[in-house]
Amino acid sequence: MPVNLPLPVADQLLPVAGVRLGTAEAGVRKQGRRDLTLIELATGSRVAGVFTQNAYCAAPVRVCRQHLARSGGMRALVINTGIANAGTGAQGVENSLQSCHAVAELLGVPVDAVLPFSTGVILEHLPVERLTAALPAAKSALKADGWFDACHAIMTTDTQPKCTSRQLQIGGKTVTITGMSKGAGMIRPNMATMLGFIATDANIEQPVLDALVKDVADESFNSITVDGDTSTNDSFVLIATGASGAPAITLCEGVDYQALRAALVDLAQWLAQGMVRDGEGATKFMSIVIESGKDRAECRQIAYSVAHSPLVKTAFFASDPNLGRILCAIGYAGVADLDVDKIRVWLGDGKEEVLVAEKGGRAAAYLEEDGVRVMKSPEIIVRVDLARGQAAATVWTCDFSYDYVKINADYRS
Amino acid sequence: MPVNLPLPVADQLLPVAGVRLGTAEAGVRKQGRRDLTLIELATGSRVAGVFTQNAYCAAPVRVCRQHLARSGGMRALVINTGIANAGTGAQGVENSLQSCHAVAELLGVPVDAVLPFSTGVILEHLPVERLTAALPAAKSALKADGWFDACHAIMTTDTQPKCTSRQLQIGGKTVTITGMSKGAGMIRPNMATMLGFIATDANIEQPVLDALVKDVADESFNSITVDGDTSTNDSFVLIATGASGAPAITLCEGVDYQALRAALVDLAQWLAQGMVRDGEGATKFMSIVIESGKDRAECRQIAYSVAHSPLVKTAFFASDPNLGRILCAIGYAGVADLDVDKIRVWLGDGKEEVLVAEKGGRAAAYLEEDGVRVMKSPEIIVRVDLARGQAAATVWTCDFSYDYVKINADYRS
Repeated sequence: MPVNLPLPVADQLLPVAGVRLGTAEAGVRKQGRRDLTLIELATGSRVAGVFTQNAYCAAPVRVCRQHLARSGGMRALVINTGIANAGTGAQGVENSLQSCHAVAELLGVPVDAVLPFSTGVILEHLPVERLTAALPAAKSALKADGWFDACHAIMTTDTQPKCTSRQLQIGGKTVTITGMSKGAGMIRPNMATMLGFIATDANIEQPVLDALVKDVADESFNSITVDGDTSTNDSFVLIATGASGAPAITLCEGVDYQALRAALVDLAQWLAQGMVRDGEGATKFMSIVIESGKDRAECRQIAYSVAHSPLVKTAFFASDPNLGRILCAIGYAGVADLDVDKIRVWLGDGKEEVLVAEKGGRAAAYLEEDGVRVMKSPEIIVRVDLARGQAAATVWTCDFSYDYVKINADYRS
Repeated sequence: MPVNLPLPVADQLLPVAGVRLGTAEAGVRKQGRRDLTLIELATGSRVAGVFTQNAYCAAPVRVCRQHLARSGGMRALVINTGIANAGTGAQGVENSLQSCHAVAELLGVPVDAVLPFSTGVILEHLPVERLTAALPAAKSALKADGWFDACHAIMTTDTQPKCTSRQLQIGGKTVTITGMSKGAGMIRPNMATMLGFIATDANIEQPVLDALVKDVADESFNSITVDGDTSTNDSFVLIATGASGAPAITLCEGVDYQALRAALVDLAQWLAQGMVRDGEGATKFMSIVIESGKDRAECRQIAYSVAHSPLVKTAFFASDPNLGRILCAIGYAGVADLDVDKIRVWLGDGKEEVLVAEKGGRAAAYLEEDGVRVMKSPEIIVRVDLARGQAAATVWTCDFSYDYVKINADYRS
């Protein structure tokens, strides 16, 4: 069961002007479930994306990168679950392109204005015929308030959908942002991938959108980890239709830009944290906050060292304030010249915070009972002060439970 | 239960001329167990060591580094279990020095000719009085064939001791090497550390010994992982007493040097692999062999990426030939410009080997039943050909089981 993750409520998911979504049953891998999502974008929509750095990147990721390099606007996204179309060589790229062709023909748009996304089992070929046969049904289902259906249709082994909306004012116009994501490990039992889609009717020029997608990803999807495994299919795209009528955002500065950026980061963090809250076997949601570092890179390096340590993660599963493991993970993060005599570490639950380590060891005033009390919370904050600079970074992760092993040791179904 | 790890047999552990070992009950943390080991070295003995890179390195590691910087020979090692003396600040260093002083006085040797080692619980102070009170008993117990007792006395939560011997001829003289190690995760439930001790009566000049300890560690203790956690106390020392009467090894070249190096690497690999075989909750012993890389560094990077992946480790626990996870871990290792179309991957059990991946995906001739058959073995070899150079590296690891979580989620006893 996810850690403090509210279910989406259909009428709280706001339509984004210029975006219509439709779902259908294609039977990609199993019958009787909606496994195909079509997203149609109004003329003039702009899209920017960030994708997995995995050398074994999936065929749809290759095609997305290629199509996003075109100069014209994007018109459609096609998303299937069941099969990830990863580790499928040249045939995989061909299959992914064929699904784009089918969408292009159906909607009357250029083939390179279509972006494909796949998630599911690796090393299996996409059944393109079944997928394209279901496209007309997905087209018929297209509607502006299709987010609720779509966030269900992109799930694989997520235990619940993740979708939410935000609104803000730009130049006197209401701008809406709605986003959805899926993924519960970076890679599930042989099921690949995190996918994230955020659409807004704000008018954002392409260079600004390209910068925003990286910034937003850095502070959200690139700041989480369940098991440290980076999937072959990870993709996050940011869509701006411009249909709100709000004035264009042309520079990465100014009040409107800052407000929009903050809303996007807020929404993306909600989605990203939602994936951790729904992480495989998760029973705790942990925020690893590293402060007063020399630069953001070293703060992230230490945060990930703590967040990836199986020993820290199993201790948190056991609600054990095991300081030794946390200090140890800070110490082996590979950051040069750390002065452990100056480092301070706190454990908190959002209500209270306990100083647990200072001067190279346990804090003088620390009482085990205080640590134990804080660790009982399902939401735990590990805060570390490096005392060597002004930079900070936060990484969100979950604990490591019996269920993580159970889920991942189960033979592929 | 360890994976294919033979128990030491007392009369197969060969004494090393110039080395005497004694154990005693100091009651460092618990009563009724031998937790103190004293090793006395003959005059003229030389020692070289490699230690943890963890910024929170333990007090005895700091003292060891300091004492090894002296010009004279080493005369004694003192090892305690129960408490790691890590995360203990200035008081920890003082305590470690005090135990060296007590040994120095007892044996009549200089204090900086004594090397201290501790392993056990982190963040607790060493009870120096109890430790020094037991030193006379350890001294009375000193004997040349004390390896069997010592390899038991340095254990913490290891399920069995690791100790073995080798012999070779140098200049017509028989040279003996005996070594022991402890550790079953890089760090156990709050129990720190891997310790490794190898002694030989070969005559090895200090510069050669200094180079050898790094080489040997690189090919053994630095090529294993259980959970990726690098402890605060990890230490490996190589002792050369010179008491065999064999001619001195003065250069890192020549037939004698090569034979000695090979024997040391062989013994150290046996000890290092023994720690993996006795890894927390281990049911499989896995060798990750990366070949035809550009350099050893990138081969190790990929090998560790596979060896650390919780998804690969849980799949191996399940005897599941889950190729997607292996390819994925190769792909996200962070090695630039990997051409996945050229990479080939085999799974083997030491008797047969099955080509499972090529051309960016599943091998054309691969049958799942072949993979399943190989994966049933408790000894599994993952071999990867990167097809881009002449370098190679091997990393040894174990699987991730329910018992790993159980062992590490148990509250500190």
